[in-house]
Amino acid sequence: MRLRNKPWADEFIAAHPTIVVPNPEEWKGKWGTLFPQNQPLHIEVGTGKGKFITGMAIANPDINYIGIELYDSVIVSAVENALEAGSPPNLRLLNVNGAHLEKYFAKMDVARVYLNFSDPWPKTRHAKRRLTHENFLKLYESILPSNGEIHFKTDNRGLFEFSLVSISEYNMRLKYVSLDLHAEMPEDNITTEYEEKFSALGQPIYRLEAVFNK
Amino acid sequence: MRLRNKPWADEFIAAHPTIVVPNPEEWKGKWGTLFPQNQPLHIEVGTGKGKFITGMAIANPDINYIGIELYDSVIVSAVENALEAGSPPNLRLLNVNGAHLEKYFAKMDVARVYLNFSDPWPKTRHAKRRLTHENFLKLYESILPSNGEIHFKTDNRGLFEFSLVSISEYNMRLKYVSLDLHAEMPEDNITTEYEEKFSALGQPIYRLEAVFNK
Ligand SMILES: C[S@@+](CC[C@H](N)C(=O)[O-])C[C@H]1O[C@@H](n2cnc3c(N)ncnc32)[C@H](O)[C@@H]1O
Ligand SMILES: C[S@@+](CC[C@H](N)C(=O)[O-])C[C@H]1O[C@@H](n2cnc3c(N)ncnc32)[C@H](O)[C@@H]1O
Repeated sequence: MRLRNKPWADEFIAAHPTIVVPNPEEWKGKWGTLFPQNQPLHIEVGTGKGKFITGMAIANPDINYIGIELYDSVIVSAVENALEAGSPPNLRLLNVNGAHLEKYFAKMDVARVYLNFSDPWPKTRHAKRRLTHENFLKLYESILPSNGEIHFKTDNRGLFEFSLVSISEYNMRLKYVSLDLHAEMPEDNITTEYEEKFSALGQPIYRLEAVFNK
Repeated sequence: MRLRNKPWADEFIAAHPTIVVPNPEEWKGKWGTLFPQNQPLHIEVGTGKGKFITGMAIANPDINYIGIELYDSVIVSAVENALEAGSPPNLRLLNVNGAHLEKYFAKMDVARVYLNFSDPWPKTRHAKRRLTHENFLKLYESILPSNGEIHFKTDNRGLFEFSLVSISEYNMRLKYVSLDLHAEMPEDNITTEYEEKFSALGQPIYRLEAVFNK
């Protein structure tokens, strides 16, 4: 997904300010007032083309959702996805870097963080870039309440192994682990683009839920 | 392995008191004096036919090993295995129930507990029988030092998922997780009977190391 910026992407994004929030730092501490309903906010870091977050917004109208995607060339597809779904009122996108969540969210702004098929960064020297590295867990902790949760899916064995240990060493508690999500597919599972692709190849999908307080 | 007792099993076991320890409760708190060398003691609960514990004893002469197996019809094969390996001086077997470890071991008698391919007890109502259930973790904690470790291998996905959550909820720390041990086989891996069988069928072998203190 490391595409070069499509030249028309910026323009397209600016033309949809009710989907991609302009100046998101201005909403820090008051996201409840941006959405029609002031209700719990769940975010996804690394939303990609938006299949998951749009599906979640439609399935759960009593939750607000924000999908965060760094690349404008990619978020364009997520905007299209949201438009096709009729622009769910409880869905917004941010075209920002998930490594700086603290700029956009105050403590307890967010009730849950979703990570789906995050870039694996397999080289040890890139471990700090993995979205379940200790430094990212610290970041999520700074915007979640003490019973805040992280829900993570991936097909990448190395990243999942790393994440189990990282989460455990951070003193978080694992609430749930599946090592083959599609073997007993939960009824309420909303698939992502990558999930469709890798499970079609027969690869097991790993999933965990972790909570900060023990 | 739920075989009926072979009629000659008792006799065979009694004939090898330097391998299968008679009256193991008498050694509680002083296992170091039973072995030729007073050195750290690692135990395996549910040893089966003894391939693993015999291999470990030979590979690591500076550790004492005890394999615990409930069924005399099964432990007979472990005795035969030990005899074929020349009765390693740092290896003993106990023909007792692992659910009563506290009868045989005092706090800190044991430095590490191995669990290999433990019976999965897949029914929820049998969860308490799983060797990584909270009650068993409490039992292991009562015989280990605070930095004591549990090393666990299995092919059983449900049991491994359960164990990751159970260990995390017990406030232990995961040090290491592999979700496909044989994909990058560690050089020092000693296989068990079940491990050979299930990995030959192409099933991934799961492995974890967990420590009590965080
Ligand atoms: C492998 S894709 C997975 C996309 C989607 N979650 C799925 O499951 O189909 C990872 C996505 O995360 C985005 N991403 C990576 N690092 C990011 C960061 N620091 N902030 C925001 N997005 C990021 C990438 O641009 C890419 O779209
Ligand atoms: C599935 S077999 C695995 C044997 C061996 N560890 C392997 O990996 O090949 C499980 C073994 O644990 C033994 N076992 C089960 N519950 C036990 C208990 N409470 N105490 C001691 N042994 C037990 C069984 O008799 C059986 O031999």
